[in-house]
Amino acid sequence: MERNVLFVVNGPNLNLLGRREPSVYGTTTLDEIDGNCRAWGAERGLEVRCFQSNHEGDLVDWVQRGGDEADGIVLNGAAYSHTSVALRDAVAAVSVPVIEVHLSNTAAREAFRHESHLTAVAAGLVMGFGASGYILALQGLKTLLEGK
Amino acid sequence: MERNVLFVVNGPNLNLLGRREPSVYGTTTLDEIDGNCRAWGAERGLEVRCFQSNHEGDLVDWVQRGGDEADGIVLNGAAYSHTSVALRDAVAAVSVPVIEVHLSNTAAREAFRHESHLTAVAAGLVMGFGASGYILALQGLKTLLEGK
Amino acid sequence: MERNVLFVVNGPNLNLLGRREPSVYGTTTLDEIDGNCRAWGAERGLEVRCFQSNHEGDLVDWVQRGGDEADGIVLNGAAYSHTSVALRDAVAAVSVPVIEVHLSNTAAREAFRHESHLTAVAAGLVMGFGASGYILALQGLKTLLEGK
Amino acid sequence: MERNVLFVVNGPNLNLLGRREPSVYGTTTLDEIDGNCRAWGAERGLEVRCFQSNHEGDLVDWVQRGGDEADGIVLNGAAYSHTSVALRDAVAAVSVPVIEVHLSNTAAREAFRHESHLTAVAAGLVMGFGASGYILALQGLKTLLEGK
Amino acid sequence: MERNVLFVVNGPNLNLLGRREPSVYGTTTLDEIDGNCRAWGAERGLEVRCFQSNHEGDLVDWVQRGGDEADGIVLNGAAYSHTSVALRDAVAAVSVPVIEVHLSNTAAREAFRHESHLTAVAAGLVMGFGASGYILALQGLKTLLEGK
Amino acid sequence: MERNVLFVVNGPNLNLLGRREPSVYGTTTLDEIDGNCRAWGAERGLEVRCFQSNHEGDLVDWVQRGGDEADGIVLNGAAYSHTSVALRDAVAAVSVPVIEVHLSNTAAREAFRHESHLTAVAAGLVMGFGASGYILALQGLKTLLEGK
Amino acid sequence: MERNVLFVVNGPNLNLLGRREPSVYGTTTLDEIDGNCRAWGAERGLEVRCFQSNHEGDLVDWVQRGGDEADGIVLNGAAYSHTSVALRDAVAAVSVPVIEVHLSNTAAREAFRHESHLTAVAAGLVMGFGASGYILALQGLKTLLEGK
Amino acid sequence: MERNVLFVVNGPNLNLLGRREPSVYGTTTLDEIDGNCRAWGAERGLEVRCFQSNHEGDLVDWVQRGGDEADGIVLNGAAYSHTSVALRDAVAAVSVPVIEVHLSNTAAREAFRHESHLTAVAAGLVMGFGASGYILALQGLKTLLEGK
Amino acid sequence: MERNVLFVVNGPNLNLLGRREPSVYGTTTLDEIDGNCRAWGAERGLEVRCFQSNHEGDLVDWVQRGGDEADGIVLNGAAYSHTSVALRDAVAAVSVPVIEVHLSNTAAREAFRHESHLTAVAAGLVMGFGASGYILALQGLKTLLEGK
Amino acid sequence: MERNVLFVVNGPNLNLLGRREPSVYGTTTLDEIDGNCRAWGAERGLEVRCFQSNHEGDLVDWVQRGGDEADGIVLNGAAYSHTSVALRDAVAAVSVPVIEVHLSNTAAREAFRHESHLTAVAAGLVMGFGASGYILALQGLKTLLEGK
Amino acid sequence: MERNVLFVVNGPNLNLLGRREPSVYGTTTLDEIDGNCRAWGAERGLEVRCFQSNHEGDLVDWVQRGGDEADGIVLNGAAYSHTSVALRDAVAAVSVPVIEVHLSNTAAREAFRHESHLTAVAAGLVMGFGASGYILALQGLKTLLEGK
Amino acid sequence: MERNVLFVVNGPNLNLLGRREPSVYGTTTLDEIDGNCRAWGAERGLEVRCFQSNHEGDLVDWVQRGGDEADGIVLNGAAYSHTSVALRDAVAAVSVPVIEVHLSNTAAREAFRHESHLTAVAAGLVMGFGASGYILALQGLKTLLEGK
Repeated sequence: MERNVLFVVNGPNLNLLGRREPSVYGTTTLDEIDGNCRAWGAERGLEVRCFQSNHEGDLVDWVQRGGDEADGIVLNGAAYSHTSVALRDAVAAVSVPVIEVHLSNTAAREAFRHESHLTAVAAGLVMGFGASGYILALQGLKTLLEGK
Repeated sequence: MERNVLFVVNGPNLNLLGRREPSVYGTTTLDEIDGNCRAWGAERGLEVRCFQSNHEGDLVDWVQRGGDEADGIVLNGAAYSHTSVALRDAVAAVSVPVIEVHLSNTAAREAFRHESHLTAVAAGLVMGFGASGYILALQGLKTLLEGK
Repeated sequence: MERNVLFVVNGPNLNLLGRREPSVYGTTTLDEIDGNCRAWGAERGLEVRCFQSNHEGDLVDWVQRGGDEADGIVLNGAAYSHTSVALRDAVAAVSVPVIEVHLSNTAAREAFRHESHLTAVAAGLVMGFGASGYILALQGLKTLLEGK
Repeated sequence: MERNVLFVVNGPNLNLLGRREPSVYGTTTLDEIDGNCRAWGAERGLEVRCFQSNHEGDLVDWVQRGGDEADGIVLNGAAYSHTSVALRDAVAAVSVPVIEVHLSNTAAREAFRHESHLTAVAAGLVMGFGASGYILALQGLKTLLEGK
Repeated sequence: MERNVLFVVNGPNLNLLGRREPSVYGTTTLDEIDGNCRAWGAERGLEVRCFQSNHEGDLVDWVQRGGDEADGIVLNGAAYSHTSVALRDAVAAVSVPVIEVHLSNTAAREAFRHESHLTAVAAGLVMGFGASGYILALQGLKTLLEGK
Repeated sequence: MERNVLFVVNGPNLNLLGRREPSVYGTTTLDEIDGNCRAWGAERGLEVRCFQSNHEGDLVDWVQRGGDEADGIVLNGAAYSHTSVALRDAVAAVSVPVIEVHLSNTAAREAFRHESHLTAVAAGLVMGFGASGYILALQGLKTLLEGK
Repeated sequence: MERNVLFVVNGPNLNLLGRREPSVYGTTTLDEIDGNCRAWGAERGLEVRCFQSNHEGDLVDWVQRGGDEADGIVLNGAAYSHTSVALRDAVAAVSVPVIEVHLSNTAAREAFRHESHLTAVAAGLVMGFGASGYILALQGLKTLLEGK
Repeated sequence: MERNVLFVVNGPNLNLLGRREPSVYGTTTLDEIDGNCRAWGAERGLEVRCFQSNHEGDLVDWVQRGGDEADGIVLNGAAYSHTSVALRDAVAAVSVPVIEVHLSNTAAREAFRHESHLTAVAAGLVMGFGASGYILALQGLKTLLEGK
Repeated sequence: MERNVLFVVNGPNLNLLGRREPSVYGTTTLDEIDGNCRAWGAERGLEVRCFQSNHEGDLVDWVQRGGDEADGIVLNGAAYSHTSVALRDAVAAVSVPVIEVHLSNTAAREAFRHESHLTAVAAGLVMGFGASGYILALQGLKTLLEGK
Repeated sequence: MERNVLFVVNGPNLNLLGRREPSVYGTTTLDEIDGNCRAWGAERGLEVRCFQSNHEGDLVDWVQRGGDEADGIVLNGAAYSHTSVALRDAVAAVSVPVIEVHLSNTAAREAFRHESHLTAVAAGLVMGFGASGYILALQGLKTLLEGK
Repeated sequence: MERNVLFVVNGPNLNLLGRREPSVYGTTTLDEIDGNCRAWGAERGLEVRCFQSNHEGDLVDWVQRGGDEADGIVLNGAAYSHTSVALRDAVAAVSVPVIEVHLSNTAAREAFRHESHLTAVAAGLVMGFGASGYILALQGLKTLLEGK
Repeated sequence: MERNVLFVVNGPNLNLLGRREPSVYGTTTLDEIDGNCRAWGAERGLEVRCFQSNHEGDLVDWVQRGGDEADGIVLNGAAYSHTSVALRDAVAAVSVPVIEVHLSNTAAREAFRHESHLTAVAAGLVMGFGASGYILALQGLKTLLEGK
């Protein structure tokens, strides 16, 4: 790892986490997830920077920026995973690895969530582990960056 | 965890790992992956039992057995992920969580590998991390078993 | 109704209403529609707040805000109705009812306008009545809020 | 309006309304809906005539008759909405406007209910408002007849 | 020909012919078409019996009856051509030849009119010749009955 | 069983059974099938009432009536099985069990006969046993009514 | 009719008519069909010119020439009906009416013969009447030319 | 019947019957079903032999063996019904009749269970009657063997 | 040309041109392309204004503004070409001609890039010429504006 | 450029340009387009040779010949663009660049014109500029030949 | 064999064999393949006649001629295999066996090359063996002619 | 050839060859085919080893073993050709060439037999020549091994 920086980028409606439908998404808020990610990084001498937006263009901007400033990116594109070719192009354009993460098992939900534009250009995918999936994704990302 | 046993079940052609096409699948053999998994378990007081077969029916048998003897299952169904409803039914029938794992990013390969019958009934999915994905899957499985 | 506030949220290109292609969309401007909606509310002791943006993320933001500040939402997603899973997720996430409205009969237009991501998660749908459809949608929303 | 007559035409199984599955369709019977529609008309000096049949051909006959005797038609084609080209052709053939109405939100039900043959030739669509949707449809129809 | 009787069976909305949309369907009424068919038959010593209904079941009944009482049938199924397997089964069940006829060129209209359930089991098809297509169909039917 | 009444409802073209294409459908007439069914019932103290019509609406009416007057229904929808959502809705609306029956193996015939709208809402399905399938269906229906 | 000339244009493999598979296509040769067509024309003071080729380009050339030299065209495109957009464009480009004819009922044959590129731009279609279909097509063409 | 032997062949995961998910599949075990089938046969002087395997190849072997040793076969292919062309070919290859049986109504379950490779080559189908469906299938099979 | 102003609007990730994957996209930066376009305009007395954004809504805003301030628009929608109905509606809404341009030949890339929502409402399309395609598009636009 | 020769190859029905449907295709004839192309070449010291045929095989022959005798090819395949794999293979086989050109915007026409077999193997595409598109295509071709 | 003559018919672009893309298609020219085929025949007392054309109609003509003059035909339809129903009809019309041959494995190439119209009516298929596939096809053809 | 060993691997139901449906599959048994293959090898100093199983896993095992012990493999996957990704992966994994063979012309049979998972990864394909196809496949395999 050259820069000792990892990005965690979150997509639309994830700002509502923990505040609504806790039976589905759990009671962990996005702030808590961000805190866990940063703490995980701090223990390993890594800076983890977290972002969230409901705007597709913001996600594109941040992935591009991550390509310049970070060693790798954990990306939960949420709904934009299924509709955004722009986000896919950004992921493909940056030379750092991107790990796709989803809280729920999208394959067990509606058909239009079964396909993600991002997966084919991501380095790896982690889904179905709820909030703890972010830590798994960061671990996997670290392993890829160190081991490959 | 009640039984302190986890199963790792591997599907067809994974016995060839490390011996063929190392540029694609790496030089790690299935024996080495099995060893890593067992070592990971030993450090945590867990028995990890590893299986491999080219026969769909064997996989169904082992998933059923895992439901009786283990706390959870890590399953790399390989080609049967894409064709076996029998394996899916076995995963759905057992009451212990099953984590699907793939060495490569199947979404970046041929179209017939994009859909897995197993994902919708698995508890989680980890793919694209090569041999290290098994350890991530075991970690995620342990988290689910402890935390949920 | 608890808050006596209703939102009317309008999507992309609706700011051009009345100024272009009047033979298709009529000569009523969006300002006039907003005025009619607010007047309808004033007569009934309701505050009707109106929004328009060409940005998908703005619509997601406003639907989320409507979930916090309003009793219900009338939503004309325009083009985003057919492409935005993010907007759908926002509609599904808020606990207040959302009524989908379209000026024209989208089923009589191009095939890619026949399906709306929003309808399945909306409480109701009103379309084909031109500018007067907003008033019908507000009436229906009020009936749902009072009667259910 | 020339004839001061509006038709309300109901399709198959709607005669069971209120008597079965009240948790789904409510406890309002079709007789009550008819009564509400006629009362709404009486207050406005309009005769509202109501029909129901399980026979596709009856619906075609009544839509044709409505073209001769009424100023407009509110049509709940129920199951025939999804299968009847004959009913569509009747709607397209008459020169008076037809408003399609559905009690439930058909987009949130089975896939074969997502497409209606009638919508593309109807003047407008109202759905998801339960029994009160008939009154909204009559209001919208009246507005179209007076204002356009 | 054994019985010297031919049936001409007409489907839904054809009773409106000549009275509506004359720019599309011409000014010839169904009564005039029936008269022409009967006159054509009378000149050749054949009784031509004409039927029309908006009810699918009536068409099935008449095709069945035609199998018992006539030498052949000319059938304009109109909208039921595209939706009725029952009518198709009736055509397939009778042992007399059935000629399908359409006034307009259905291949130049909406996609859902491009396929007819009846064609595959009809003896022949005549379409696009307006009202004169019935006489062509009767001629073709007579040729088939005499020559084959 | 509360009413000791079972309905047997037959769809379009089944009135031709035994009279046409005996090599395909056998030489048993519908009257003989009805007789067998009634005799089977009489031996068991059950009244079996038999119906046949070529009209979709009649079948809907009778299924509705069976919901009021019978303990269960054996339904051979024939061609309407493949096209009638109205009949499906009627089957779904009544609270008594409906057994779908077909004389032939529809899966071995044309593609448009492979899917039946009725099956998903029927309690059971019996097909491929010719005329004797009605007795199997009545037996299965009786078992369901007694045993469940 | 201005030029008193009609074209009959035949496509690939029709030169084999009567010489092969007589059980399917009958024993009438293309020469005999051409003779019948010319005789039919001679009786009515019309010159009927007949063409056949296995080359798609020849058919395009002749349809173009027919637009310059004839009052109308009877076209049996055979296999090119199902594959040739070039022939379709030629039919659409000429201002004289073109009647499509097929010897057999193509809807009762293989799926790839069910759709013809030509039908949507032809004035009319006659099929299933064998060799006598050419005379029906010429009659229909003459009626269209005189009556419209 | 020549051999007085019938086979009952069961596919993958049916060995779990009664032990898991009793709310879905009931509390009857496969052993009990086998016992019922053998008892039914014993009363009628027939030997009923029962098999179960999770291996597709075993089912193919047994269907082939049934063709040599039995008069007919009752086959619950379970998941292999939807994926196994090999099993279909075995059913088609043997000259004794095969009756397909399913405990549940597969048409009311996931889409990938709606089509069975076996149905088109089976003699008959019985589904939706739970454990009692095996007895209905044996009765139907006996009727076919005796009566046809 | 009335305003002597042309817009060049560029979509997501085009800001990375020349800086990444030069083997694919060349070494020309977007700044250089903008410079070339402005220089081309200056030589012809035209003001060329250039825009780029990763936000769909910005592109919609600029196309709308171009309808008010420019004589025509050259639009490289990049990824939004394939997903944005909002952008399509903006292009259709403005009365000035829009020329679609792509650097690469999108038909030779992934399937999801083969269809563009914009093409059907654009005046013309230029693709596959790399950076020089912008000048061809401007030339074509100028020709359309002057000559048509 | 080695040979200073460019080919312009035109497909079926383009010989009718300017003579028919001038409201659609303009009044410019193919001869005039050829003249413009040759003049454009003469000004630049290039020989431009023009071809047209209604025969698919001729176009294949000429593209092959262009590969031997020219520096590049401008190809308007017209209808064969949508149906000819042979022409595609010829374009792919020659080592000189081929520019596809269409007079009209084919994406705004019938669905079967939306896909061209040629585009994926062409170097570039120019469409929607009418007759002036040929000059743009020649310019783009010249730029590619000089600049690459 | 009656005539001791076999045809080898080659389709579009095969005249380029050996001259272009030798890394893909090898360095053997079509002349050399023809020579090998004729030599193989001469050794066995058979005349092998070889043809090639880029014109679909020529292939149809030659297959028809082969039906009159040869005992069997080896056919490499190249691109026309995937688009020509006319060639398929010619193969089906002749009574001598036709063996389809392809140099490369078309199943490993683009999707539009996976289906051949010819295969279903050919007697056999040989592909993937390069130039030596012609000799295998001739051998197989000879075996079929002698042995069947 | 290094090992002078070739494998012939046969899939499900091929053990029934010659014993059932001789009118379809001929009277040659699999033993006779195996004998012919071994004899063909013996004449050329090659050991040909033959296998058959109804178990998918056995075929995978043998293809893997062939990769270790043989120079090449002739594989008739029968039904597993159409459903087994596991077998495909085995074929792709071994470095020796595999020739796919089918007795019948699968393209002339049911649609689900038209696509084989194996073809795209096989070196060559021979089908439609009955039992003699195995010898052609061995010849082709030998040519590939020697010549390439």
